[in-house]
Amino acid sequence: MIGYQFMGKAHSHAYRDLPFFFNSKMKPVMKAIAGRNEQAVIEAAEKYGWESYETDWRKIIERKDIDVIDIVTPNHTHSEIAIAAAEAGKHIITEKPLALTVEEAERMYEAVQKNNVHHMICHNYRFVPAVQLTKKLIEEGRLGKIYHFRANYLQDFILDPEFPLVWRLKKEVSGSGTLGDIGAHSIDLARFLVGEIKEVVSMMETFIKERPIAELSGGLGGKANNSLKGTVTVDDAVAFLARFENGAIGTFEATRFAGGNRNKNTFEINGEKGSIKWDMENMNNLEVYFADDEPGLQGFRLINCTEEIHPYTSAYWPAGHIIGYEHTFIHLIYEFLNGIVDNYQTEPNFKDGLINQKVLDAVEESANNKIWIEV
Amino acid sequence: MIGYQFMGKAHSHAYRDLPFFFNSKMKPVMKAIAGRNEQAVIEAAEKYGWESYETDWRKIIERKDIDVIDIVTPNHTHSEIAIAAAEAGKHIITEKPLALTVEEAERMYEAVQKNNVHHMICHNYRFVPAVQLTKKLIEEGRLGKIYHFRANYLQDFILDPEFPLVWRLKKEVSGSGTLGDIGAHSIDLARFLVGEIKEVVSMMETFIKERPIAELSGGLGGKANNSLKGTVTVDDAVAFLARFENGAIGTFEATRFAGGNRNKNTFEINGEKGSIKWDMENMNNLEVYFADDEPGLQGFRLINCTEEIHPYTSAYWPAGHIIGYEHTFIHLIYEFLNGIVDNYQTEPNFKDGLINQKVLDAVEESANNKIWIEV
Amino acid sequence: MIGYQFMGKAHSHAYRDLPFFFNSKMKPVMKAIAGRNEQAVIEAAEKYGWESYETDWRKIIERKDIDVIDIVTPNHTHSEIAIAAAEAGKHIITEKPLALTVEEAERMYEAVQKNNVHHMICHNYRFVPAVQLTKKLIEEGRLGKIYHFRANYLQDFILDPEFPLVWRLKKEVSGSGTLGDIGAHSIDLARFLVGEIKEVVSMMETFIKERPIAELSGGLGGKANNSLKGTVTVDDAVAFLARFENGAIGTFEATRFAGGNRNKNTFEINGEKGSIKWDMENMNNLEVYFADDEPGLQGFRLINCTEEIHPYTSAYWPAGHIIGYEHTFIHLIYEFLNGIVDNYQTEPNFKDGLINQKVLDAVEESANNKIWIEV
Amino acid sequence: MIGYQFMGKAHSHAYRDLPFFFNSKMKPVMKAIAGRNEQAVIEAAEKYGWESYETDWRKIIERKDIDVIDIVTPNHTHSEIAIAAAEAGKHIITEKPLALTVEEAERMYEAVQKNNVHHMICHNYRFVPAVQLTKKLIEEGRLGKIYHFRANYLQDFILDPEFPLVWRLKKEVSGSGTLGDIGAHSIDLARFLVGEIKEVVSMMETFIKERPIAELSGGLGGKANNSLKGTVTVDDAVAFLARFENGAIGTFEATRFAGGNRNKNTFEINGEKGSIKWDMENMNNLEVYFADDEPGLQGFRLINCTEEIHPYTSAYWPAGHIIGYEHTFIHLIYEFLNGIVDNYQTEPNFKDGLINQKVLDAVEESANNKIWIEV
Repeated sequence: MIGYQFMGKAHSHAYRDLPFFFNSKMKPVMKAIAGRNEQAVIEAAEKYGWESYETDWRKIIERKDIDVIDIVTPNHTHSEIAIAAAEAGKHIITEKPLALTVEEAERMYEAVQKNNVHHMICHNYRFVPAVQLTKKLIEEGRLGKIYHFRANYLQDFILDPEFPLVWRLKKEVSGSGTLGDIGAHSIDLARFLVGEIKEVVSMMETFIKERPIAELSGGLGGKANNSLKGTVTVDDAVAFLARFENGAIGTFEATRFAGGNRNKNTFEINGEKGSIKWDMENMNNLEVYFADDEPGLQGFRLINCTEEIHPYTSAYWPAGHIIGYEHTFIHLIYEFLNGIVDNYQTEPNFKDGLINQKVLDAVEESANNKIWIEV
Repeated sequence: MIGYQFMGKAHSHAYRDLPFFFNSKMKPVMKAIAGRNEQAVIEAAEKYGWESYETDWRKIIERKDIDVIDIVTPNHTHSEIAIAAAEAGKHIITEKPLALTVEEAERMYEAVQKNNVHHMICHNYRFVPAVQLTKKLIEEGRLGKIYHFRANYLQDFILDPEFPLVWRLKKEVSGSGTLGDIGAHSIDLARFLVGEIKEVVSMMETFIKERPIAELSGGLGGKANNSLKGTVTVDDAVAFLARFENGAIGTFEATRFAGGNRNKNTFEINGEKGSIKWDMENMNNLEVYFADDEPGLQGFRLINCTEEIHPYTSAYWPAGHIIGYEHTFIHLIYEFLNGIVDNYQTEPNFKDGLINQKVLDAVEESANNKIWIEV
Repeated sequence: MIGYQFMGKAHSHAYRDLPFFFNSKMKPVMKAIAGRNEQAVIEAAEKYGWESYETDWRKIIERKDIDVIDIVTPNHTHSEIAIAAAEAGKHIITEKPLALTVEEAERMYEAVQKNNVHHMICHNYRFVPAVQLTKKLIEEGRLGKIYHFRANYLQDFILDPEFPLVWRLKKEVSGSGTLGDIGAHSIDLARFLVGEIKEVVSMMETFIKERPIAELSGGLGGKANNSLKGTVTVDDAVAFLARFENGAIGTFEATRFAGGNRNKNTFEINGEKGSIKWDMENMNNLEVYFADDEPGLQGFRLINCTEEIHPYTSAYWPAGHIIGYEHTFIHLIYEFLNGIVDNYQTEPNFKDGLINQKVLDAVEESANNKIWIEV
Repeated sequence: MIGYQFMGKAHSHAYRDLPFFFNSKMKPVMKAIAGRNEQAVIEAAEKYGWESYETDWRKIIERKDIDVIDIVTPNHTHSEIAIAAAEAGKHIITEKPLALTVEEAERMYEAVQKNNVHHMICHNYRFVPAVQLTKKLIEEGRLGKIYHFRANYLQDFILDPEFPLVWRLKKEVSGSGTLGDIGAHSIDLARFLVGEIKEVVSMMETFIKERPIAELSGGLGGKANNSLKGTVTVDDAVAFLARFENGAIGTFEATRFAGGNRNKNTFEINGEKGSIKWDMENMNNLEVYFADDEPGLQGFRLINCTEEIHPYTSAYWPAGHIIGYEHTFIHLIYEFLNGIVDNYQTEPNFKDGLINQKVLDAVEESANNKIWIEV
């Protein structure tokens, strides 16, 4: 694994916890972790259970005892590492967004195809049991034709103007702001559940344009280390309208300025036969409405997706005993390893990352030029 | 009152119920109701408690014993009646939308100004106690600078493709579809709570393009009377992005195709110091978040706005005993009559209706031309 | 009507509003209201729309132009007035609890039977559409055999120790405290929905034993008029366990010391085939669970009981437009008048009031003697 | 660890996952697991990551390389194993309930005291961050004097009469039914949050008295293996009233017959200054009401207890990224190990288990004799 911050922790935990709950055909061995700061990477290796460490990510890729490379570094480094890994014949998992630009993403996708390696992008929210149930119901036609997809991803961790200028707020490192960080997740859920997006129109906004400078630090946090201010070069908030290829229409909003919403990743889908609502903060629940339920007894059912019959949950606890955020990564890696063993390309993969990047680019171009953009 | 369908009932009830709960300085006397169908208007007069009836609305306007004209007819008739009433020196309450076009709305606004009569437009949702509390908190600066306004108005009453082609689905009678009918309410709430909208970009969609023909009927319902189909000439759904003059950004969606949402009129407002959420289906509740609440104890407060201290509610029942939809009209008329007595022009009035109409027109033009439109 | 405080207002409104919404065969004419304080009763008559007033309730009963007596006075006066009214051949509606003791209640029930008048007791919560739907589902066997009834009635209006010693806190006037005031409603719902209670065991508590003395005043409120303190002679809170005759078991709790719960009147019913949950603060909603819903899609449905198909609601507004507390009284009086016209004895009536009183007495006796009591 | 079923899995996971998230001074080494069925215990050891296994639990206790014994066997075996472990000088964690009877529990408590070992009982719900926050608020006096504790623990996994006669339904193995299994958790939360229980009165019920015979199996499930029926010898449901030593009153209900409630472990606490509500199915949330919040802005705050400032949660993910059921065990073991290292006796321990058992016995005796019982 290359990188060791927030996502490094989440992925490490998943590798470690996977064999406990699932009988996957391939059991991950946590060989090595890489990071530039030796002290930090030693601590991460120790704490997260990696057998060894490297301070140069290239070393990891050179190692013969490693089959899978997991990239959890800041966004601007994804493409170089991924392409090198692909050329070394390693299977690759990478964090989202795939790259900073469509062009980068295309080169990455070409590399994995050419080198015939397995690849995956960490849109982990697909792997929430309630989201998988949503997918299943849609595929079974239980909602009929889809009319609406409505997604909000609301956070508030930079509401305070004194929150420092961390890497996620710098375009040169993160590629984009709220859009690429969390809006990308909503786009992935839309593509997974409804289908491809044809065109978009958007607006983006940076409410707080200058913030105290912070040393480059990982995670979501960081402390301002002096009174200097620097310019926020990414979006604080983005909203866009979309038309899907299948005729559905979508509304999307992502922001880090919605006070009281810590990680409010939600969607609602309305189809001719029913509707579904979901909220990551109560991720085990799914609200499902069927228009053909008996008249007078129609209403959203609050389904606690923790029963044996629900996706993934038979691996865990009895019904009503909920799981959390970290389990989405276990499911993702479980599916990735299954794909390697059984030789099929699991989704979401670099192709999904590439298409997602095209949507992100279209949204950004639309905001810049105030026009509708075809994806 | 002119008209006697859904809104006729709501307004009639409000006149009748107002003196029971409020000590308004002016007590309404329900003089006369007008409608073209004599039998129906007789029944309405009897049931709703009007002293007399007319089958020609002009007669109402001519009557000397009538001071206030209340217009609850289909949208395409508003302007003619309102202008005539203004010219006769009557005070006027009219249903929304004010008119079919901005031009019509402007003539109406000119007429009431020129004739110096009181005028009001029935954006009744302003008068929900929880919405009034929202207004108060914003005016007191409790949310600080507003960043986001997010409004959905979701209904599902025409989800069934066999639902007939009632007047609300015909552009020549209703002016617009979902946009003018319910989207107009969200726009009014946005203007009331956040401020004026500067520009919009939108998309509109008609999912079901043909429906069984129904006889012209009022209300929301109606029965298809034969197997002929006619063309739906209004929007089934509309979504738009907006920029407010004060820098806030807004997202709006209105649809009649969101299964399971009977009348889901909601908004969320995010400001630098707090957030507020509201949902008409649970209209007595307000969710309020303050970013400066004690750390660790921050969260949306669920406030049941039924206490003596809350707007309007001291007129009713002890705390926790909820009121309903119909009470919004009582409050609206209460405010209108206060304005007449104390000689100030209550809001929302024809000016608000005119501005609302301008936004509606901008939204429609944006959808037609796929560009951003300044209001 | 005799009395003019909180319940006087609620009943007056119902008489007045009934003909607007319902085509009842008998239309109430609001003849006269009685109260001892002439100024207050004049104001009440004026405001609530009564044609005349009396300062002596006996005058009302003597009047030939009055057919129905509605008793909304403090509890200790119910029996004398009701018996007099029955002997005068008047139909009677009375507030709950029926009386202070079982003995009083029995005499009242005898009087109405002997004089062959119609009688009703105002357990208005039966007439919430969602509660009526609950009854219907149970009668249709949709829940199967009932196992559990679980009712809480939580208020907090006397949480403050400085809240004064109003009549509701004096045993000689009110008969009992929380138990008779709100616990009686839960008992009525239990009897209505599940069946007769066989035996109970209870505990009662008075948390604040002394309060500032208030002048006798009606309603829930009142102001302390001096620094003297008096003794609270009723229960602040009561909880009891019950066994129903049909084998179900019940748990009940009523309190005025549950901070944040303004009028939290709730029940949950669990049967072999399903469950139902209801909460008066969101009275239009009903949560219904069916154990035979498709596996994986089971969950409580949130039903907004405002559709045409739901009990009473076709009289009001389109689906999703909620009604409130006051409407329960409209439905109650509608049913009472129907019973008079069609000559059947509507429920709940004095018989229900009597049985309720027996349960109340059993609960109180159980608390006093710390033993199970058969009803 | 002795035992390997549902709780064996939960505890094993906690040992394994603890060092990943927490820097505890003592890092657990998973030495050995014991179980009678060799094949099953080998699989458990392999899957859960134990270094070795034994088929005789005495062997585990004899081993010099083991310091902590974790007992997750059926209830009737707890005392023998725990006493042997204590005498061998091992620290002990055991599942609840501590024993089948008070007498057994007393001997266990004596044994750990005499042998000076650390001991803990797995009332894991204490270690939910939201519950810890509740404790903190109460200790800080934020609720003032406590008036009410109201706990429901509702499940429905045996609602189906065809659910087989597993060991949890046999008194000789489990000691009691719903009461000891889940009611014991509510009692522990009551003691933790409010204080000691002085006296109780209860009722217990077995709704389905005969069930298909199942082979002895662990976990919650099991399959009926023939058409024979056996007698259910434990309670399906229990409800009791309680008086606490500090004057608060409590109501408790536990059942496995509340359809739609998979694992609805809830409490509400009302004090003179505020109230708190919690529900295990949404365990990350806490609802908190303060009576001294600004008038008009009072209401339950919905606190998502996933912030850095909340108990335990800084070890995990950013705010709004929830944790689940399994994490409660991590916290419990973390506290236990801290106690060993720093040489203090962590709670809840055998003393709590003993007192809990006394309450359980009192509840059962009360149900049998229909009288109030002092604990």
